[in-house]
Amino acid sequence: MSAGWFRRRFLPGGPLPAPRPPRPRASPVPYRRPRFLRGSGSGPADAPRRPDARPVRSPARGRALPWNAGYAEIINAEKSEFNEDQAACGQLCIGRCAFAAEEDQEWLTLCPEELLTGHYWALFDGHGGPAAAILAANTLHSCLRRQLEAVVEGMVATRPPMHLSGHCVCPSDPHFVEEKGIRAEDLVIGALESAFQECDEVIGRELEASGQVGGCTALVAVSLQGKLYVANAGDSRAILVRKDEVRPLSSEFTPETERQRIQQLAFVYPELLAGEFTRLEFPRRLKGDDLGQKVLFRDHHMRGWSYKCVEKSDLKYPLIHGQGRQARLLGTLAVSRGLGDHQLRVLDTNIHLKPFLLSVPQVTVLDVDQLELQEEDVVVMATDGLWDVLSNEQVARLVRSFLPGNREDPHRFSELAQMLIHSTQRKDDGPTGEGQVSYDDISVFVIPLHSQGQRSGGR
Amino acid sequence: MSAGWFRRRFLPGGPLPAPRPPRPRASPVPYRRPRFLRGSGSGPADAPRRPDARPVRSPARGRALPWNAGYAEIINAEKSEFNEDQAACGQLCIGRCAFAAEEDQEWLTLCPEELLTGHYWALFDGHGGPAAAILAANTLHSCLRRQLEAVVEGMVATRPPMHLSGHCVCPSDPHFVEEKGIRAEDLVIGALESAFQECDEVIGRELEASGQVGGCTALVAVSLQGKLYVANAGDSRAILVRKDEVRPLSSEFTPETERQRIQQLAFVYPELLAGEFTRLEFPRRLKGDDLGQKVLFRDHHMRGWSYKCVEKSDLKYPLIHGQGRQARLLGTLAVSRGLGDHQLRVLDTNIHLKPFLLSVPQVTVLDVDQLELQEEDVVVMATDGLWDVLSNEQVARLVRSFLPGNREDPHRFSELAQMLIHSTQRKDDGPTGEGQVSYDDISVFVIPLHSQGQRSGGR
Repeated sequence: MSAGWFRRRFLPGGPLPAPRPPRPRASPVPYRRPRFLRGSGSGPADAPRRPDARPVRSPARGRALPWNAGYAEIINAEKSEFNEDQAACGQLCIGRCAFAAEEDQEWLTLCPEELLTGHYWALFDGHGGPAAAILAANTLHSCLRRQLEAVVEGMVATRPPMHLSGHCVCPSDPHFVEEKGIRAEDLVIGALESAFQECDEVIGRELEASGQVGGCTALVAVSLQGKLYVANAGDSRAILVRKDEVRPLSSEFTPETERQRIQQLAFVYPELLAGEFTRLEFPRRLKGDDLGQKVLFRDHHMRGWSYKCVEKSDLKYPLIHGQGRQARLLGTLAVSRGLGDHQLRVLDTNIHLKPFLLSVPQVTVLDVDQLELQEEDVVVMATDGLWDVLSNEQVARLVRSFLPGNREDPHRFSELAQMLIHSTQRKDDGPTGEGQVSYDDISVFVIPLHSQGQRSGGR
Repeated sequence: MSAGWFRRRFLPGGPLPAPRPPRPRASPVPYRRPRFLRGSGSGPADAPRRPDARPVRSPARGRALPWNAGYAEIINAEKSEFNEDQAACGQLCIGRCAFAAEEDQEWLTLCPEELLTGHYWALFDGHGGPAAAILAANTLHSCLRRQLEAVVEGMVATRPPMHLSGHCVCPSDPHFVEEKGIRAEDLVIGALESAFQECDEVIGRELEASGQVGGCTALVAVSLQGKLYVANAGDSRAILVRKDEVRPLSSEFTPETERQRIQQLAFVYPELLAGEFTRLEFPRRLKGDDLGQKVLFRDHHMRGWSYKCVEKSDLKYPLIHGQGRQARLLGTLAVSRGLGDHQLRVLDTNIHLKPFLLSVPQVTVLDVDQLELQEEDVVVMATDGLWDVLSNEQVARLVRSFLPGNREDPHRFSELAQMLIHSTQRKDDGPTGEGQVSYDDISVFVIPLHSQGQRSGGR
């Protein structure tokens, strides 16, 4: 994305875009559940569930996911008869590439012995329909593989070389790279960032071609070379649960957590609000009676609060409105990062949401090889429906109470994922003592870490 | 600052500014040292020091600073015969204001019993001459007092009211304020943010009027209502040192730590670089031999690194160049936040630095009343010259080794500040075992916390 493209696409007065050749309309993205749920028992895997049935589904016994990870999902279907969550996982095989002779500069894929392998788990929480989440589940791992293959030569070097070809133009190149502290893991982070953006573009093209709409969040865990990378764009969450530790591996991106970035963009490009919204934050929406009064407010450069005298323009609908789970961007969207939403507009206006959304994830690196792993150490990844009613500590307590008593069950991580979901469905006092109920779709991966760092095929 | 103003000021093609009436040229800002150094012994306080003398100066014995804080400074005069650092401290008296009767809506300043008092310590590290730092030392506390007085009614309430007047337009206003989690301390943070910006504007006007140039960093500590607020814009640093704890109270803002924000602005407004710079980051400056090669790079949206094929435009001078202490914004400036620099341009060009600089500080709040304070708990504030050669842990070790043996000396916190500076001047192995030497101006406050939270006059 260039600044020029951004201006032409979203700002008035830019040069007219060149007419695009008509493209044959593609067929709609077919609804489906993850492939690893085939044969999981409770009815055909690709049929929508009856909203009142609410079965919790897991992979069939005997169907192992990477690292023997557990998975469970539930359709709560408040918003749609389809499950808007999607999941994907699998092995990630990175072809180790090398330059051919200089004269042609073509890539050669070397023999299979030279592959770098890792594993991949991903959750996508769709909105505005399931299409974007399905496309993301079908596509993101391919984007990631492509991005990793483009830099794999740098990843397997002791330190990424200044020049991917290995040709050294300047003798002190290794020194410059070291001074910047660039490590192999920075290339994986860069590849994850690029893969999310590439996938976002694919989704935009595919949805436009098939006349569909929608977006999704994306939470991805990738194991590679003894490290676990967690990339997050949206409000899903991953945590590490150990005997004496609960460590967040992601943070949520919502209109509330990204307020300053979003207000800043509206400050730079007021045209994006088309005179219909105010970028300022107030504790509540203002009304006529507030005119002329000094009320609490925040602008883009402020973490603190101050008072301002209310003018007429402050009575407009706020760019970010509501609080906590209810916070909405432009009255429309509850997340500020994710994939898709290229066509999303504020109802009955021409105001686009996309300029305020980022597809780039935040990436956390867990150095699995450096942890003194115990048998019950797991990563729990789940969409927001779980975290709406269970805190990190509550999930950790449930994990610690379940796993030690079920060491012999090979299916225990899926059993645990199911148990976590069941804990969100009880109106009575469940094991959390909270009795809260989630009405959102929920998907959960439980990834055991013990003796996997080595097994992951590092190199 | 509005987006329109920004565009008119810094971008080509905006409407011409209205001609300003000629203003009589003000006299230059006179050089001076902090007033509390008067009578401190080593020569007249307002005379520039000889560069080879390098005396360390502290307030005269018997002249107490707020909370009996200690202070010391040294002119290392590598860049100028003047000390470019400045310091200020004092009591902060906030007039508690109240609305008069509704009919006139005038402010009434109530009697002195109603004052809220606090204390203020500030360090300013100038560049391009001492003028901006002197203006900041003369001005910032007044800006802060004004900003605090504008919101003090909200600060002394249990929770800041939605309406400063106390009039409740909507019965659930307190609920909205509570839901947003707005506390009195958020008003102080907001006042600090506004005060820095107001001070920046004053400096811009004064320097323009007197035909001078320059800028400065600003690090401010304010005690108010049992809390210590640390506001920082630049590369000075404050830390809390306790018996078993070293806690950073600020973080540094440099072209390196703010890379993404700065690159993002250049992405949005490429005009700001006038075709002379590239916004991309490379491990070193590229040269002709790199053309067509795949080299390591980072753009604004990336925390990781990737490879790109070098094009001709990548050979331009980079927006941020150099590493660590050597990193420079547009080849010119080592800090990315601070006050002043309104006229600063890249040498021999019309490219302004100011759009890339922020005057807004980051504010940290230390809940002094909640700490179980011990007698040797102090806050150490210092300009970057100290931190260039001493780590937080080294400073903490020096503090802990000095204070217990000097309990009876009322001047001991200034002695400690002097000792910290002396530790940066030794070419031999000093008490730190490092033997590093700082050639920068250095100013240090040591603020004792014990039994001060209560004494600060809460309210």
